[in-house]
Amino acid sequence: MTAVRGVTRTEASRGARLRSVPVGDVTMHPGFWADRMAANDRGIVALLERLEAEGVVDNFRRLSGAVDAERRGLWFTDSDLYKWIEGAAWSLATVADEALRERLDEVIDAVIGAQAPDGYVNTAFGDDRYADLTTSHELYCAGHLFQAAVAHHRVTDDDRLLACATRLADHLRATFGPGLREDADAHPGVEMGLVELGRETADDRYLTLAGWFLDRVDHAGLRELWGHAVRAEYYACGLADVVLDTGDDALERDVVRMWSSLVDTRSYVTGGVGGRWLGESVGRRYELPNASAYAETCAGIGVVLWAWRMLQAAGGAEFADRLELALHNAALVGMSLAGDEWSYVNPLADSGDDEQDPWMHDLAGFNLLFLPARRRPFHPVTCCPPNVNRLVASVPGYLYGTSAEGLWLHLYAASSVRAAGLGLTVTTGYPWSDRVDITVDDVAAGARTPRSLFLRIPGWCASPAVAVNDEHLPPPEPGTYLELHRSWEAGDRISLDLAMTPEALVAHPRVEANRGSVAIRRGPLIYCAEAVDHPGVDVLEVGLAADSPLVAEWRADLLGGVTVVHARGTRRVTPFPGLYASASAPVAIEPVDLTLVPYYAWANRELGAMTVWLAASGLRP
Amino acid sequence: MTAVRGVTRTEASRGARLRSVPVGDVTMHPGFWADRMAANDRGIVALLERLEAEGVVDNFRRLSGAVDAERRGLWFTDSDLYKWIEGAAWSLATVADEALRERLDEVIDAVIGAQAPDGYVNTAFGDDRYADLTTSHELYCAGHLFQAAVAHHRVTDDDRLLACATRLADHLRATFGPGLREDADAHPGVEMGLVELGRETADDRYLTLAGWFLDRVDHAGLRELWGHAVRAEYYACGLADVVLDTGDDALERDVVRMWSSLVDTRSYVTGGVGGRWLGESVGRRYELPNASAYAETCAGIGVVLWAWRMLQAAGGAEFADRLELALHNAALVGMSLAGDEWSYVNPLADSGDDEQDPWMHDLAGFNLLFLPARRRPFHPVTCCPPNVNRLVASVPGYLYGTSAEGLWLHLYAASSVRAAGLGLTVTTGYPWSDRVDITVDDVAAGARTPRSLFLRIPGWCASPAVAVNDEHLPPPEPGTYLELHRSWEAGDRISLDLAMTPEALVAHPRVEANRGSVAIRRGPLIYCAEAVDHPGVDVLEVGLAADSPLVAEWRADLLGGVTVVHARGTRRVTPFPGLYASASAPVAIEPVDLTLVPYYAWANRELGAMTVWLAASGLRP
Repeated sequence: MTAVRGVTRTEASRGARLRSVPVGDVTMHPGFWADRMAANDRGIVALLERLEAEGVVDNFRRLSGAVDAERRGLWFTDSDLYKWIEGAAWSLATVADEALRERLDEVIDAVIGAQAPDGYVNTAFGDDRYADLTTSHELYCAGHLFQAAVAHHRVTDDDRLLACATRLADHLRATFGPGLREDADAHPGVEMGLVELGRETADDRYLTLAGWFLDRVDHAGLRELWGHAVRAEYYACGLADVVLDTGDDALERDVVRMWSSLVDTRSYVTGGVGGRWLGESVGRRYELPNASAYAETCAGIGVVLWAWRMLQAAGGAEFADRLELALHNAALVGMSLAGDEWSYVNPLADSGDDEQDPWMHDLAGFNLLFLPARRRPFHPVTCCPPNVNRLVASVPGYLYGTSAEGLWLHLYAASSVRAAGLGLTVTTGYPWSDRVDITVDDVAAGARTPRSLFLRIPGWCASPAVAVNDEHLPPPEPGTYLELHRSWEAGDRISLDLAMTPEALVAHPRVEANRGSVAIRRGPLIYCAEAVDHPGVDVLEVGLAADSPLVAEWRADLLGGVTVVHARGTRRVTPFPGLYASASAPVAIEPVDLTLVPYYAWANRELGAMTVWLAASGLRP
Repeated sequence: MTAVRGVTRTEASRGARLRSVPVGDVTMHPGFWADRMAANDRGIVALLERLEAEGVVDNFRRLSGAVDAERRGLWFTDSDLYKWIEGAAWSLATVADEALRERLDEVIDAVIGAQAPDGYVNTAFGDDRYADLTTSHELYCAGHLFQAAVAHHRVTDDDRLLACATRLADHLRATFGPGLREDADAHPGVEMGLVELGRETADDRYLTLAGWFLDRVDHAGLRELWGHAVRAEYYACGLADVVLDTGDDALERDVVRMWSSLVDTRSYVTGGVGGRWLGESVGRRYELPNASAYAETCAGIGVVLWAWRMLQAAGGAEFADRLELALHNAALVGMSLAGDEWSYVNPLADSGDDEQDPWMHDLAGFNLLFLPARRRPFHPVTCCPPNVNRLVASVPGYLYGTSAEGLWLHLYAASSVRAAGLGLTVTTGYPWSDRVDITVDDVAAGARTPRSLFLRIPGWCASPAVAVNDEHLPPPEPGTYLELHRSWEAGDRISLDLAMTPEALVAHPRVEANRGSVAIRRGPLIYCAEAVDHPGVDVLEVGLAADSPLVAEWRADLLGGVTVVHARGTRRVTPFPGLYASASAPVAIEPVDLTLVPYYAWANRELGAMTVWLAASGLRP
């Protein structure tokens, strides 16, 4: 059996129904994700230049004496480089870029050269190791080194970085645990890394340590998702990973409860998470402001990671739905179309003004973040850019899965795959077009018995249709996996029609920011109105007629090629008088034409106002 | 000429049209404010006990050697005691409470005993004076000492504390200024205090220093109100005070611009200010969330102080409207009906759950504030309770004003006043009843020439009516002062009918939290729906029928006597499915009866949900 080079490796995980497909066993064809990955590859090259310029790599080199300089940057930048390594590794799984491979090797040399004899690696702490785990991020950084090493090993078979990671993990085992240091990093992340390292090295002791770290928090007592969004999600990812590898029912109940809290009361319509700037936190139930959303790019990525782990356990389509939503909207918005600028904060509405509070910079600890929400070539806190890099580079690994029964199609993208004894080609203009055509290219000799293809039928699709070899099947249920069980033969054809009718969504009435407003979704994409498409109209004040037709149009010339949605809007003829006014004052309105673009693509043209939620006129109560 | 014992003293201020009326020259009659003041008097007594228990007074005593103990509490608690002194002094202007007078004298002795030979007074800093004005609050505390000393002197004619304050102010003059220390406190407040001290002592040098402190910020460059709400307001109050005393046109333009920013884009419908927990700040334009409003009680009080200073300049009724709004809603909500509990944070919607983020306490600098928004007998940061004390105790000083032309009636409350040569009695059930009856009790010998009474016609009143001695005048213009110029005689009667028709308000469409929602106002009061009045109904999800009649009813039995507003609401029969759902899904609704109570009185019964803004069904776009 060949090594499983997927984004997670659960073939020996007793609580997992699904396994991942090696990133390199998926060939991307021209299309949406191939474009995004190409842009991401450019971003990976650009980001390393900036990390070098900021001293992030030199911080490692100085520990081996290769560079004579003071350490530079924030104390957790090691994790940025580890995420960059992971992204570069996944990129090499699909693109044979020799220059990138060489740069990656150099960077890995720098990391290995910085490792202390006892296995400790961290450029910010030396004699004062683990002095304050509430702020130091030492274990969080270690977790990212583990993930980077695993990805690098899976893609290249080179075990140098994996050995470095293993030495660090062994150092952690010798340092933390019952009777040793009995605390954990305030920023989770090491747990996912330890579990994955354990899977890669077939060593259960790393899983044990991960579980012990997680138990430093009373997860059975957590009734809600609370606190720093990314920390909460990464913590939950760690729980989910331990559930996958142990099948622990009590732990599974805890993580399912946290998941429910995420999706039932604390998610943006984009799949993004984090309603509160203060503490970068999820906030209270239904605390989901639009203009002042935090919705950190890393938190959108956290949803993808978490949903993937939940999906592996039992193959629940609701997890794939959520993964798709967060990936295409909350995470993807973090990267510019060109791939070389990244956002940190992702509001769902923006005035377009460069409003900036001159006093806010005085608030220690937050001053680095108080920039308007825009994509930039660099951020002083650099967590998001390389997180986007590693996610987008590994997207091929999220498209498919396997189980004892056969092959699973989680996300639809133009690609070919070879897994579970089958070779398939998926031809589709997804997420723009309704149609997905799947062809069986070949069937391995050992796989000629009946086996299943599991096709995800997205929950957002009201009227899906499926045909096998032109024979129409009964309409499948949205929000499920449709199992097609047969003896597949080369040449078999499946066609899937996922009608992408644009749809107006309303929010739960407890979400005060969305009362009386609608958001437009088409397929997996959430839409927004940008000022640049509406000259002379303030999109933040415009209304969308509740009975408006919503008409999709493919625009090859726009934003790298997108489907826009046209709608009929309304606007006040006279300005609103002041800040509050009588509800009974007469209001004259006039129609305006609205053109909505995918949210992930906003802010790639001129700076201007944007909103996902549009005031609805004539909405029912 | 007798001393002007009002809340400000502008008779020598070249930029002031109005002067205040001595607090002690107003006699409150039974009614709304007499009740609130009586409750406040109980609160003043209760708060001193708590300040003693927390060591706030002992912090002063220890400096004179009277107490041998470590300093206790936060580094800015001196200001709490100064505000308490100010509140107690104003209270003594209307209530001859000998026990309180004795306690006040003791406290003042403690303060005076703590003054250093060079005039410096601060219990938290000694050898490290002025080491870090970005955090120390030393000048902010000084400002409150000045205000306390002025109030105490005005009420009692005792000049001991005033002398102490003058020594401190002289010390500041010797320490700060051109060629000396050239920075200012990051928390404004000293400026108002210095100006008022200058007025009280007829010493322009304190005004000069106040202006110099204000100039440490580029106020001409401030296009918006930004940053910490209370700081921004107190800064603006300082500017307004300097404008009053200098008539400086450029400075006036700066403060008017800040005022416009306040009322046009940064005020809650309650008059409250501060949309953001982070930094306790005003946030961006239209950033006015309800459930996560900060709207600190002190910020509501800051609006009153600021509006009062704007009003003194030119007698603009819009400032009196704003003062009334903030006083009756944003400030008054900070005090429980019994007077002995205070709120710090004042949301406009509340789940009623004791939701508390277990991780949020880790955020240094904010952990003291992360309590649910409820009134409590004490707060670790105690700025608000004594701020309420001093405001409510001085309310008689805000009712009336004088100018060269005559007597101004700013706020209507059952009371008698003697000012501008006239003795008046105002008989009214305001803010519950429409009717205000004003009787001229007597006219001083020197005041028998024609002179004016200026009656404020509130902007919220759509159909005001006035009669003098039963003769109806043409309807006055809402949002103005109606000038009645005549030779007044004892027995003259004015009746004012300020129709208090309950009205539904909508917010500017840029206020995302209020889209599709209405708030109910009746007279100067903003209303809310509380769970306790709606068993079995979730007030946070209920809708208010846009065509609902709004019916006022006096309820003597409720909340110390309030007028409630009845309305017809709607609610969903089936729960909303999830967090987001199709706008076109059918929704069954059923009617519910709504009973709204004044916002200031919420959370005086059982803990439960509350909302000011109600989703409106059938609202026009």
